[in-house]
Amino acid sequence: MDQRKTTSQKPVVGIIMGSDSDWPVMKAAADFLSDMDVAHECTIVSAHRTPQRMMDYAKDAHKRGIRVIIAGAGGAAHLPGMVASITPLPVIGVPVKSTNSIDGWDSVLSILQMPGGVPVATVALNGAKNAGILALQILGSADKNLQKKVIQYKQKLEKEVLKKAEKFPG
Amino acid sequence: MDQRKTTSQKPVVGIIMGSDSDWPVMKAAADFLSDMDVAHECTIVSAHRTPQRMMDYAKDAHKRGIRVIIAGAGGAAHLPGMVASITPLPVIGVPVKSTNSIDGWDSVLSILQMPGGVPVATVALNGAKNAGILALQILGSADKNLQKKVIQYKQKLEKEVLKKAEKFPG
Amino acid sequence: MDQRKTTSQKPVVGIIMGSDSDWPVMKAAADFLSDMDVAHECTIVSAHRTPQRMMDYAKDAHKRGIRVIIAGAGGAAHLPGMVASITPLPVIGVPVKSTNSIDGWDSVLSILQMPGGVPVATVALNGAKNAGILALQILGSADKNLQKKVIQYKQKLEKEVLKKAEKFPG
Amino acid sequence: MDQRKTTSQKPVVGIIMGSDSDWPVMKAAADFLSDMDVAHECTIVSAHRTPQRMMDYAKDAHKRGIRVIIAGAGGAAHLPGMVASITPLPVIGVPVKSTNSIDGWDSVLSILQMPGGVPVATVALNGAKNAGILALQILGSADKNLQKKVIQYKQKLEKEVLKKAEKFPG
Amino acid sequence: MDQRKTTSQKPVVGIIMGSDSDWPVMKAAADFLSDMDVAHECTIVSAHRTPQRMMDYAKDAHKRGIRVIIAGAGGAAHLPGMVASITPLPVIGVPVKSTNSIDGWDSVLSILQMPGGVPVATVALNGAKNAGILALQILGSADKNLQKKVIQYKQKLEKEVLKKAEKFPG
Amino acid sequence: MDQRKTTSQKPVVGIIMGSDSDWPVMKAAADFLSDMDVAHECTIVSAHRTPQRMMDYAKDAHKRGIRVIIAGAGGAAHLPGMVASITPLPVIGVPVKSTNSIDGWDSVLSILQMPGGVPVATVALNGAKNAGILALQILGSADKNLQKKVIQYKQKLEKEVLKKAEKFPG
Amino acid sequence: MDQRKTTSQKPVVGIIMGSDSDWPVMKAAADFLSDMDVAHECTIVSAHRTPQRMMDYAKDAHKRGIRVIIAGAGGAAHLPGMVASITPLPVIGVPVKSTNSIDGWDSVLSILQMPGGVPVATVALNGAKNAGILALQILGSADKNLQKKVIQYKQKLEKEVLKKAEKFPG
Amino acid sequence: MDQRKTTSQKPVVGIIMGSDSDWPVMKAAADFLSDMDVAHECTIVSAHRTPQRMMDYAKDAHKRGIRVIIAGAGGAAHLPGMVASITPLPVIGVPVKSTNSIDGWDSVLSILQMPGGVPVATVALNGAKNAGILALQILGSADKNLQKKVIQYKQKLEKEVLKKAEKFPG
Repeated sequence: MDQRKTTSQKPVVGIIMGSDSDWPVMKAAADFLSDMDVAHECTIVSAHRTPQRMMDYAKDAHKRGIRVIIAGAGGAAHLPGMVASITPLPVIGVPVKSTNSIDGWDSVLSILQMPGGVPVATVALNGAKNAGILALQILGSADKNLQKKVIQYKQKLEKEVLKKAEKFPG
Repeated sequence: MDQRKTTSQKPVVGIIMGSDSDWPVMKAAADFLSDMDVAHECTIVSAHRTPQRMMDYAKDAHKRGIRVIIAGAGGAAHLPGMVASITPLPVIGVPVKSTNSIDGWDSVLSILQMPGGVPVATVALNGAKNAGILALQILGSADKNLQKKVIQYKQKLEKEVLKKAEKFPG
Repeated sequence: MDQRKTTSQKPVVGIIMGSDSDWPVMKAAADFLSDMDVAHECTIVSAHRTPQRMMDYAKDAHKRGIRVIIAGAGGAAHLPGMVASITPLPVIGVPVKSTNSIDGWDSVLSILQMPGGVPVATVALNGAKNAGILALQILGSADKNLQKKVIQYKQKLEKEVLKKAEKFPG
Repeated sequence: MDQRKTTSQKPVVGIIMGSDSDWPVMKAAADFLSDMDVAHECTIVSAHRTPQRMMDYAKDAHKRGIRVIIAGAGGAAHLPGMVASITPLPVIGVPVKSTNSIDGWDSVLSILQMPGGVPVATVALNGAKNAGILALQILGSADKNLQKKVIQYKQKLEKEVLKKAEKFPG
Repeated sequence: MDQRKTTSQKPVVGIIMGSDSDWPVMKAAADFLSDMDVAHECTIVSAHRTPQRMMDYAKDAHKRGIRVIIAGAGGAAHLPGMVASITPLPVIGVPVKSTNSIDGWDSVLSILQMPGGVPVATVALNGAKNAGILALQILGSADKNLQKKVIQYKQKLEKEVLKKAEKFPG
Repeated sequence: MDQRKTTSQKPVVGIIMGSDSDWPVMKAAADFLSDMDVAHECTIVSAHRTPQRMMDYAKDAHKRGIRVIIAGAGGAAHLPGMVASITPLPVIGVPVKSTNSIDGWDSVLSILQMPGGVPVATVALNGAKNAGILALQILGSADKNLQKKVIQYKQKLEKEVLKKAEKFPG
Repeated sequence: MDQRKTTSQKPVVGIIMGSDSDWPVMKAAADFLSDMDVAHECTIVSAHRTPQRMMDYAKDAHKRGIRVIIAGAGGAAHLPGMVASITPLPVIGVPVKSTNSIDGWDSVLSILQMPGGVPVATVALNGAKNAGILALQILGSADKNLQKKVIQYKQKLEKEVLKKAEKFPG
Repeated sequence: MDQRKTTSQKPVVGIIMGSDSDWPVMKAAADFLSDMDVAHECTIVSAHRTPQRMMDYAKDAHKRGIRVIIAGAGGAAHLPGMVASITPLPVIGVPVKSTNSIDGWDSVLSILQMPGGVPVATVALNGAKNAGILALQILGSADKNLQKKVIQYKQKLEKEVLKKAEKFPG
């Protein structure tokens, strides 16, 4: 499992995706965490093409210091749910709208509609940035410094809207 | 893996389902195969609650003589696709309409919309009987005796309709 | 804001819902947390009928020691998203299938499809139990004792399936 | 709240939207009201990024002389419903088909399916022009001069069709 | 057109529906207006079975003092849109979930998705009570006394929630 | 093909359905035609269980004097389209909402979405009565006596509504 | 009603559409009928912008010799159903996928899901050519010469496929 | 039936499609089988334009040595189901997203939702490659050499992912 792109610190968030074609969407989660100085790792783990690798990743993540997993996949998207079935960590699922998807409904429902016992914290279709924010909120839930970052981020969002509103519609 | 209900002969079809609550639907596959004298086994294998058991089942099935797997599950139904990712056998997926399902769409799309490389032979919502018939057709594809059973079954269906038509509408 | 049913300890999870008619669904989250000895509070907060109360709840929750909010609502379900817009805490959204719902699609999409910047950790339709489990996983992400409870719960699920499998189909 | 673009007269219609990216759609409402000489104001009010600004807008609008509010938003579109929960004014909701929308279903259902007690007068997906017309009809309901404008507008529509029909298909 | 049930005062709201089978749903609009002392009339006007009657109703309503029309219908629900094509009054459409409806989608889309030029103020599926409230808000938009009723109604809703919250979950 | 229930006259409308379980729905077409004294025949023709019988029926119908075919089926409903591919007669398709249907969408889309070259005149879900009326309209298109029956039927519908309206809501 | 483009013979099929923007789709019906030498007229009749013109068209068509009406419209498509409510003629409805349509579902359901008593013979989304063919089949139902054209057209379709098959895939 | 493109060996898989416009999608099935050295034939068989040819193909295929049929079609896709109604062979259905499809739902549901007695092994929308793989799995179910090819193919997929993961994200 050495093929992970990691930040210099020990990563606390694991970002995984079923295929490198998901990266243009999933990158937004990594970028947000970078902006917030939250150490994370990114790699490809395919539920359907590398099931053993997925099992291994899910079994070990919490032992390696990972505290939240973000998993993105498209179509019949089993990665988030399967990882959630193994790890004790909270798993955030990102439905990715892939080619030949039926309008994204397949990935949304495959990730969201998990049976009793195995939740996946699902975010919006292609909502990788929100997955990054949710990861920060989860970490911030037990760390006032990180929570402050959430608060500041929200204030920044508000300011941006107010600024746009000021000169609207330009 | 000794908790399988098997017929006296060495089973060639494995019928698995995510939960015993799927049995009232899945039973139709077993009943059809019994009627056709096709040896089969039935057991519970949950992708989300017993992932290791699922991995083991999928890895070994073809070594034990199983030639077709029928997998039924509801909601975010990952069992058929995950088993298909591991076994070289053809996997027939039965979308089960479970409680709290969104009208069955979740299980249908979670089973059908598999990515390139890992097919699941999906049948209709709650279509377990058809899964049994499809298993027979697959076995019959290489066995003229079994194929004859398919042909006879089709003739029986036709006769039933003709008989009903004769005294229709009663 | 004294009308909350709380456990004797200082609550760390806040369970809110738009109407008392959501309680039969949402109760499963409270019951799970009770089983796990996680202190929590339950109350009614309606986005549409008590918007000020909602604002107040969302603004104060993290100051009162709440670390995760579970919010359930049906139809055009704005409670989870609106609370998430204000609190820095992770918000778990439970889409409730209410009377006159369009098959649950309305609550699912109103909660899931949040815009960039404001995530809601959405679980399955009527998936309140999973919301409770996810809350425990989030708390457990920073607390090895709670994480152990998650691990034990998963083991219990696995055992139950294995036990059912043993005498299946009975 | 001084960042509103208003017409020279005291505005009676308030047009708000969740983001400046909604303006290309929402502009049609403003343009129609301009054509009809109905004074209006346009601004950005985000339910999720500026919840307090939204509360303030909704609380004050009727006191400032606004008589109808038009609110447009995309995705999990909470702005129209949340404003409607606070103001006593009629609120017209415009579902906007945003990027990453699930074909517009999310904004349509988030705006339309309001619970008992808090209606939103929903128009078609991207139907901002119709929102402007509906605002005129509402004002015209108590003002014969404005109602006459509605009647004249309908006559103009009819004439345009008849004219096109005359030389159809060209 | 004398077969209308009217209140003793001159009606200002016209409630029409495609069939008497819609009455159990539509009654909620009439009941709300009765509670609010808003004079109204109720009758059956079928777009498909009595098209001429519909044309006549729509042409005359505003001349007879009607200021808002509430129209409910199910299936391919053309009544609200057709009335809106003729009358200069604001028309509130209530999608009714009828027998053989495809989950209500047919009536929702037939009423909501009106083309540019002819809006219908659509409320939720079976949302007749909200149609009554919206009618009051429209009337209240030009009448401070009626607007006060809207404000009081909202306060009542809020109090009911607070009262329920106080003894929740009982 | 002697198992058809026919009226005493030579039938001009053929009503066929995939299964006798469709009869409770399809009966409404036969009843309407009986009321209108239009000779018709009813039988079971299954596209999937009796494909040859279907081919024969479709090839011969117009030679035997049938002038319109009404075909009802549920699920993946191929009967109307397959018959239409063979016969030169107009085929009216009735989507039947069968058990395990996905809310009727399957039969609606299987019948409606025919490719260029082979139309099916589709009516509403379970709309067998309308299929009967449409058959009468088609026959009436070339027969003033039958067209008069259509006109009288429409007048009867109108009268019924007016009568109900008179004492509405009772 | 003199703005109709007609063929030199007395038209027997009336093709109407809600807007000239529907013409690129609807033209296929006219072209097919031209190819088959079936006299027809084409014009714009908007249910929502020219309701009186629609009423007049529908009332008179059968008196003027029209024997089948083809009506196309998009969005909340009321034209086919409203015309069908008035005329005794068979009405073929063509759902047109217009801009801002919700994937065509709105026009499909608005045309298809007609209530008992008033059928519309609905064809596929944008299926104008099939509407033309269906019109020919309806006329051919009472005219052996026209029916022969249907048979010849079907033979032509078959030949084209066989020819393509011969050199497939090229 | 001599217009089939076949490989030099006697074909064991028959790939058929409703139109040559399906070839760009269906080609992936043929390409996969070519890569795996599985003899196959490709041709056009239209359920709706060449029903007799379809009947003949389905009746004879198993007699000619075909062991699996892959059938692709779009819209109201009847080819897979109709062929399955006649042949005793397993039929794999490929829903093709054609022009004017309603987002692919029509072909998916027309192929998947087969009634009891006549299964179609449905794969994902446009999933022709998976159809090829499934055919190989079915053949491999009775032939260890072919099954080995499935196993090797899975290993290749796994290696590709691992290789991509190694240098991810590049």
